[in-house]
Amino acid sequence: MPQFRLLPRKAWAALLTQLLQPPRAASTGAVHCHSQVAEAVLPSQLKPHQEKTNFIIKTPKGTRDLSPQQMVVREKILDTVVSCFKRHGAKGLDTPAFELTEVLTEKYGEDSGLIYDLKDQGGELLSLRYDLTVPFARYLAMNKVKKMKRYHVGKVWRRENPTIVQGRYREFCQCDFDIAGQFDPMIPDAECLKIMCEILSGLQLGDFLIKVNDRRIVDGMFAVCGVPESKIRAICSSIDKLDKMSWKDVRHEMVAKKDLAPEVADRIGDYVQCHGGVSLVEQMLQDPRLSQNKQALKGLGDLKLLFEYVTLFGIAEKVSFDLSLARGLDYYTGLIYEAVLLQTPAQAGEQSLNVGSVAAGGRYDGLVGMFDPKGYNVPCVGLSIGVERIFYIVEQRMKTFGEKVRTTETEVFVATPQKNFLQERLKLIAELWDAGIKAEMLYKNNPKLLTQLHYCENMGIPLVVIIGEQELREGILKLRSVTSREEVAIKREHLVAEIQKRLKSES
Amino acid sequence: MPQFRLLPRKAWAALLTQLLQPPRAASTGAVHCHSQVAEAVLPSQLKPHQEKTNFIIKTPKGTRDLSPQQMVVREKILDTVVSCFKRHGAKGLDTPAFELTEVLTEKYGEDSGLIYDLKDQGGELLSLRYDLTVPFARYLAMNKVKKMKRYHVGKVWRRENPTIVQGRYREFCQCDFDIAGQFDPMIPDAECLKIMCEILSGLQLGDFLIKVNDRRIVDGMFAVCGVPESKIRAICSSIDKLDKMSWKDVRHEMVAKKDLAPEVADRIGDYVQCHGGVSLVEQMLQDPRLSQNKQALKGLGDLKLLFEYVTLFGIAEKVSFDLSLARGLDYYTGLIYEAVLLQTPAQAGEQSLNVGSVAAGGRYDGLVGMFDPKGYNVPCVGLSIGVERIFYIVEQRMKTFGEKVRTTETEVFVATPQKNFLQERLKLIAELWDAGIKAEMLYKNNPKLLTQLHYCENMGIPLVVIIGEQELREGILKLRSVTSREEVAIKREHLVAEIQKRLKSES
Repeated sequence: MPQFRLLPRKAWAALLTQLLQPPRAASTGAVHCHSQVAEAVLPSQLKPHQEKTNFIIKTPKGTRDLSPQQMVVREKILDTVVSCFKRHGAKGLDTPAFELTEVLTEKYGEDSGLIYDLKDQGGELLSLRYDLTVPFARYLAMNKVKKMKRYHVGKVWRRENPTIVQGRYREFCQCDFDIAGQFDPMIPDAECLKIMCEILSGLQLGDFLIKVNDRRIVDGMFAVCGVPESKIRAICSSIDKLDKMSWKDVRHEMVAKKDLAPEVADRIGDYVQCHGGVSLVEQMLQDPRLSQNKQALKGLGDLKLLFEYVTLFGIAEKVSFDLSLARGLDYYTGLIYEAVLLQTPAQAGEQSLNVGSVAAGGRYDGLVGMFDPKGYNVPCVGLSIGVERIFYIVEQRMKTFGEKVRTTETEVFVATPQKNFLQERLKLIAELWDAGIKAEMLYKNNPKLLTQLHYCENMGIPLVVIIGEQELREGILKLRSVTSREEVAIKREHLVAEIQKRLKSES
Repeated sequence: MPQFRLLPRKAWAALLTQLLQPPRAASTGAVHCHSQVAEAVLPSQLKPHQEKTNFIIKTPKGTRDLSPQQMVVREKILDTVVSCFKRHGAKGLDTPAFELTEVLTEKYGEDSGLIYDLKDQGGELLSLRYDLTVPFARYLAMNKVKKMKRYHVGKVWRRENPTIVQGRYREFCQCDFDIAGQFDPMIPDAECLKIMCEILSGLQLGDFLIKVNDRRIVDGMFAVCGVPESKIRAICSSIDKLDKMSWKDVRHEMVAKKDLAPEVADRIGDYVQCHGGVSLVEQMLQDPRLSQNKQALKGLGDLKLLFEYVTLFGIAEKVSFDLSLARGLDYYTGLIYEAVLLQTPAQAGEQSLNVGSVAAGGRYDGLVGMFDPKGYNVPCVGLSIGVERIFYIVEQRMKTFGEKVRTTETEVFVATPQKNFLQERLKLIAELWDAGIKAEMLYKNNPKLLTQLHYCENMGIPLVVIIGEQELREGILKLRSVTSREEVAIKREHLVAEIQKRLKSES
């Protein structure tokens, strides 16, 4: 078989495998036709890659591709977020997708089991990052940075069982803004709340509220209510359900399932059902039990100052002191907050809009010290924007209103009504590209004019340059507006300037 | 110990561990002082995170953080690259960082061992993506997309033993542009070369050359020279060294180490030492041996057409037919190319500038079919820009010329010369933010004016708004230019408009 000498080994092996194999099993059997494949392979023996899959092609559980349409939407969201971060003077930072496993150990409490570990392939033990906060703290400690205002946009990975329909994934994008450094109290904290307001307003997601609390108030509340140390985590997670369940049901869970004394549950109930503005802070400062707890008192004092600053920022009505907020991550030490979208009564009926919090954060003054050999600490406060959930809402809204997005930015299409004009089109389009104009043409030797014009209409390309025999002879081109269908003749040497003029007047 | 009831369990455990532990081992011992740590912990018992690391804090082997300075440089590079992709009508696409392991299997030849696998934590077997090409092909097959021009900027991971100093990493960013679909021959291929030229020119990296060859010519050459099938890979990898080694040394390696017959080596030598323009293509079309090989002949025919098109694009002098180019990846089926920077004799002495290829790609007509249950193929051609290596060159150049970059975009700083003006500063800065102006202030109750002005000079902030008692009384503010140190009084209600006017005239 001399003609087969050129067939690469792998292609040979694949070809033989395919010819010898029985029809595939059920997984792809439905779409698989064995004889067709063999036919498809034989005539093109020299293409080495006619091996095919025998598994279902999909993205991993909890992950997805973003289509061009989705990319446009996501980029708009990221633009709004990042330009706000830059407006507040943040610097960019990037860290690797994985860290030494030890870097992530003991940072996430009960969520540690959700970390993706890499296989031990010799060398270091590695894990995919779970958030952008721990890598930031590691960066500060490693480089002995004492002061930094940074933003970071990147993917993080969590092995959760995701409810994808509500915008929860195992791979998702986070946008973080953090202020590290020793400063006067609550000024950076207030700025974080201001940033969340600017972003959520800018994205026009409807009305929202930022719930605030303080880790020290949560701890103090549990202490003065008499929650045993061993039950704190479990009780915390019950309280976390108060945005979805009634107090009655939460109380039942705590007493019946988690074995909390009923009188302790009732004491907690008195607190966690409270939410309000600065007057609630004042009230709690007078609370006979809570005010006896030093740490809670410190937290309440800070909240009072925070309300003063957010009032000056003009966002006080968006901020609600909510004693039921108890964010789970191990590293928070002070103020904690979470932004939720407020549903109008009409929307509340649509289950699909229940997306939970869209932004959250808090103060973590001890995390950097965990990485410093001398335990030197850098106090930090920051926030994370939940892009996927926001994306989900924006996408739903666009579907509802039938909004369309352009997935390319092409400004000019190079067309011809005649045959054998490929060379002229190539010369012309290179001129446009070299002038910085976004241009496309069809990759065909002799496309039909109608096909070319349809392409422009489908893709929303505003201008068409048409070149043909007559034009070539006279040194002119036709410039056509796709929407008005008007055509004007134009000298070739004026084309670029004319296009730039038109694009400028349109933008 | 009633006051200790509030100390979280973990903090307790950590505190005890620290107090009971002997001084640390050598790894961190040098910087570690045990008694200091204990002191640092004790006064802040309620901070739960005074545990510290007992391992060296670093990023994983072959990875790095990008500092704010580096982020600015990288963003400039990515801007140039992405705006070129958009100029050519590409749509954005994103895929997950990891794929089902099976998706990556059998795609990378000998490089498969460099793939990072995730640990089996129950569920699917996953691997980090090795490039952006295979995920793109998987996307096309999965969604039955027959035609698409897309770009993708993202990180990929390879367990190589990296030479970090020359810009090679285990985690690195790729910028890919690909054209999928059945089109008339070599039109999309020529556009890919045009794009590489536009990007490399746009980045001002100095002179460059795009080496082109064709997989079918490589295969044909080996066949007509009489290289045994079993030696092709090994001989390929020898030939790949021709950009660093002389032909004499490469020949020696092939004959002495890889046991190739000397006359076969000499026949190969006649080919792989050839490079040139379209005339070399013509010459090879007449070559008595190579022209007898059908596949090589097809490849040469395509190259001839390619040279016609790149001539029309005005980039023919950048394109060199090079018979020593033999890109290793399994999936290429036709045209292959690689862009290299040309060093001036002066530069050639600086070893640090030897960064290898900065962009590469080729045609892969069989890859999508590997994922399609019916083996339905979508021909593709594309390119990948090696951002890290380009980044390395740009960074070196900036160091050489002492170029500085601003890491923030802050336009205005809000300052005060007086004490107790925090509230006024907060009100004022919120007004600026709400008007979309990029503004900062110090997070101190009573900063010194000189500290504030120094901050502006250090950070390159152009404007300062100064508020004090007199200004407040008269309803005015002072607007100061940092470079000229000129100050003008301005009515508060005109401030935003004046700032916007000044920023506009500066940009």
